Amino acid sequence: MIEIAALRDVINAELKQFCDGLKFKSPSNLYDPIAYTMALGGKRMRPLLTLMACDLFDGDINLALKPAVGIEIFHNFTLLHDDIMDKAPLRRNQPTVHKKWNADIAILSGDTMFVQSLQLMCKSPVYCLSEVLSVFNQAAIEVCEGQQMDMDFESLQNVSIPQYMRMITLKTSVLLAASLKVGALIGNARAEDANHLYEFGKNIGIAFQLQDDILDVFGSADKVGKQVGGDIVSNKKTYLLLKAMDMADRYKKEELLLWLQANPDEPNEKVEAVTAIYNYLNVKHLAEAEMQKYYEKALAHLNEIPCNMDKKNKLIAFASSLMQRES
Amino acid sequence: MIEIAALRDVINAELKQFCDGLKFKSPSNLYDPIAYTMALGGKRMRPLLTLMACDLFDGDINLALKPAVGIEIFHNFTLLHDDIMDKAPLRRNQPTVHKKWNADIAILSGDTMFVQSLQLMCKSPVYCLSEVLSVFNQAAIEVCEGQQMDMDFESLQNVSIPQYMRMITLKTSVLLAASLKVGALIGNARAEDANHLYEFGKNIGIAFQLQDDILDVFGSADKVGKQVGGDIVSNKKTYLLLKAMDMADRYKKEELLLWLQANPDEPNEKVEAVTAIYNYLNVKHLAEAEMQKYYEKALAHLNEIPCNMDKKNKLIAFASSLMQRES
Repeated sequence: MIEIAALRDVINAELKQFCDGLKFKSPSNLYDPIAYTMALGGKRMRPLLTLMACDLFDGDINLALKPAVGIEIFHNFTLLHDDIMDKAPLRRNQPTVHKKWNADIAILSGDTMFVQSLQLMCKSPVYCLSEVLSVFNQAAIEVCEGQQMDMDFESLQNVSIPQYMRMITLKTSVLLAASLKVGALIGNARAEDANHLYEFGKNIGIAFQLQDDILDVFGSADKVGKQVGGDIVSNKKTYLLLKAMDMADRYKKEELLLWLQANPDEPNEKVEAVTAIYNYLNVKHLAEAEMQKYYEKALAHLNEIPCNMDKKNKLIAFASSLMQRES
Repeated sequence: MIEIAALRDVINAELKQFCDGLKFKSPSNLYDPIAYTMALGGKRMRPLLTLMACDLFDGDINLALKPAVGIEIFHNFTLLHDDIMDKAPLRRNQPTVHKKWNADIAILSGDTMFVQSLQLMCKSPVYCLSEVLSVFNQAAIEVCEGQQMDMDFESLQNVSIPQYMRMITLKTSVLLAASLKVGALIGNARAEDANHLYEFGKNIGIAFQLQDDILDVFGSADKVGKQVGGDIVSNKKTYLLLKAMDMADRYKKEELLLWLQANPDEPNEKVEAVTAIYNYLNVKHLAEAEMQKYYEKALAHLNEIPCNMDKKNKLIAFASSLMQRES
């Protein structure tokens, strides 16, 4: 088993080579934003999962490296376009591309990143090219569907928890799942094992997103790297909010709805009040229980795969570190 | 040789099937704009070229149909995103997606169309899948580069004719070239013949774009379907304008520059004045001569391909109809 730190080094070296290549390309208004986006960093979770999945089946991770980086570039393309739609001024504490350049350049350099990610996906070995592309394309479509659902939710009065779960599955989980499945396919896994790994990733992804919702309210600002309670201030329909609406009696619900309509000068006031309602309704623990449920579902799928226990444990340790993160 | 009208029917039937499938997909805010975009119509030039190219080498056009439609969807995706960047209110006399819905939906449904086009490209036969994707991806990157150059030109004082030719090659011609090459690959053409067909398409594409520039000024409004002289009103750097700047003496150049800065209440005044300068400098004929040069270059490449003369003549007739069009 190759250590995660070593895998991350390999990925970062490949990403560096990709970014170095951009310096010689023109027009620079197209390629500079791509280099900038990729230099903002990130956990590189998706390519790590691809390489770990390939290694799980004793595959040659060198064969998986370019597709792994392709998925990372695709992920960053979606962030770039999402930031335009969300009008986000910052990404990892740096100005977003549409702020630093403009929205037109952000659209087009995003489109270009998408093609570049494809070019890397196409470097998958011939024996699995067609299937890799089919997994990747399906995930790509679903990510778009998830983002549209997320945008639709903003103007919807009532969003159910199943609708919310469907949205986060599409927007976040399927790409993690696809990252693993692509690695498995390149590692020549049996179809059923590749599917189990996909389901492992999908359920981990859901748990991961629930954790995200929890951290936004209950994380510490230093570690999360952004203002705690941002979701509350923007009335974002998170698992916590939807669960609170479900759990609240008539009076608590009215209180919550009043706060949703409030825009106090001091946003902290709103964050504290809504957090108090969450605490009263115990939604943090309910969300954690839900998270745990998906985490265990994920492990059950992993358990079905007959392979080296050491490698499996590494994947579990990685997944568990994602669940216990503080940011 | 299958007649063009018959090929167009086959393409439209396949497109209809694609659009019918969208009705059952959700979220509708993602898929309705795609169905709307594809229903706006068009000459379906690119998929026609793919099928004709496949048939040129006696290939089975059924194998080329889905990739052909994939290219058409890709082309429409680029129009959708271009319309956002150009702030175009209309496309084929109908409101553009970003006007009818909004820019966020236009970005995301465009992204989705791109994935859908890929899914169709991936239905290329296994024996040429990798090469088809490589041709397609390269064209897709270059179309983005061309669009960025076009946007960059808006704020550039001096654009040279070679820069302009490079821009239109990337923005327009490479996709026509790729449409043909994809068809040739599916038709199992020899590598050198597929390349000749690519070059044929590239040069036809350049001639086609020069024709576009000429028609915008010298076409008849009824037939062009938009206001004659739109490029003049918006100071678009076309071949005609760049050539006029090249040909003009000091005094004519000053006159032209004055008109470029003018925004008269009656735009026709500007169109007429600039057209008069174009006529004085004979740029229409110079542009036509340039167009002819590329057209002949295209034919020379086609001539290199040893194949059925009837089929070749059909391709020539189609190309020639594009050159002699009035809209």
